[in-house]
Amino acid sequence: MTQDNTDRPRRTNNPQAMRGKILDVAADLFQRQGYNATSVQDVVRAAATTGGALHHHFPTKKALGLAVIAERVAPEVDETAIRPVATASSAAAGIRNVFNGVADTLERNRAVTGCPLNNLALELSLADADFREAVNSVFERWRIALSLRLHSDRPDMDVSRAHDLATLIVASYSGAMAMAKASQSAEPLRACAVQLETLMS
Amino acid sequence: MTQDNTDRPRRTNNPQAMRGKILDVAADLFQRQGYNATSVQDVVRAAATTGGALHHHFPTKKALGLAVIAERVAPEVDETAIRPVATASSAAAGIRNVFNGVADTLERNRAVTGCPLNNLALELSLADADFREAVNSVFERWRIALSLRLHSDRPDMDVSRAHDLATLIVASYSGAMAMAKASQSAEPLRACAVQLETLMS
Repeated sequence: MTQDNTDRPRRTNNPQAMRGKILDVAADLFQRQGYNATSVQDVVRAAATTGGALHHHFPTKKALGLAVIAERVAPEVDETAIRPVATASSAAAGIRNVFNGVADTLERNRAVTGCPLNNLALELSLADADFREAVNSVFERWRIALSLRLHSDRPDMDVSRAHDLATLIVASYSGAMAMAKASQSAEPLRACAVQLETLMS
Repeated sequence: MTQDNTDRPRRTNNPQAMRGKILDVAADLFQRQGYNATSVQDVVRAAATTGGALHHHFPTKKALGLAVIAERVAPEVDETAIRPVATASSAAAGIRNVFNGVADTLERNRAVTGCPLNNLALELSLADADFREAVNSVFERWRIALSLRLHSDRPDMDVSRAHDLATLIVASYSGAMAMAKASQSAEPLRACAVQLETLMS
């Protein structure tokens, strides 16, 4: 790796690594301070890159925002919420694990920044139809995965009940994260987990 | 009422009416476009007032934001969510009325701007401790009112169960509004209402 001693950001010969770094940095800034409050220049600085390099990968701030949803937020929802429910011994156990696992993480981090999907959903859904659809498709993917899992556990469950129950689970997770953010406490997630388990038993 | 023919905002002799108008306009702008995306100048323009008049009532943008939460958002939550549950024949009936009533309103308006409390909770909770506490106190007031109503319906209900169930109701309302905003559909609210009723019966 070459080094120079100027303040100019070092050139990298790995554009894909820089693209990934820009996405990481932008996802973090959008999550902590919001999309609108984050300037492209904030991203350039935090990624230690140049405006030209950022523009090469993401011609507009909106393109960067949509890529953050597709390549950072959606995979995070897959990993923290969809996969654990798919692989648990039952839907009920999976949901308990997801809610309490996120609560554990929040307590370890000692600061609740909230759910990235939720944060972007509320900030961007009215601003722009493309953002709205991108956010909605992540909510829908989660809702459908839950609904299928509920149905595979209990094939006798009415399809519309599985769908409504999946909606309640996604909604209560999303709202409990908003309450956790406002109270800086993971308690709303644990309270919802207990009640949802009652409903599924 | 005097009139002049210049473009300069008309002076008013009723400072309290102007204060109320500024709050109405600011609540509407914060709700539709967010607190950060709204400038003090946007509020001045939309209220047809002057920077001096706004500054007289609200020395800072933050003072205006806190007044919007205390004097516009909190009373709206009282009216749309707390009072209907307090006055219904049962907690279950009250909650069904609140969720379906909001769903009806969203369908009439044909655009879902989301829950003002939720929107501000996610945008401002990390930015500032005073905002966080103001938002949290509205969530808490709602949660406590629900918990008391559940308990008065069923005095045999364990206090911690009433508290957890109240948390699930507030969380699912808040999350269903986020999903409604992303999908521009009131269906998530109706689905949650059906499932919550099952849980309370």
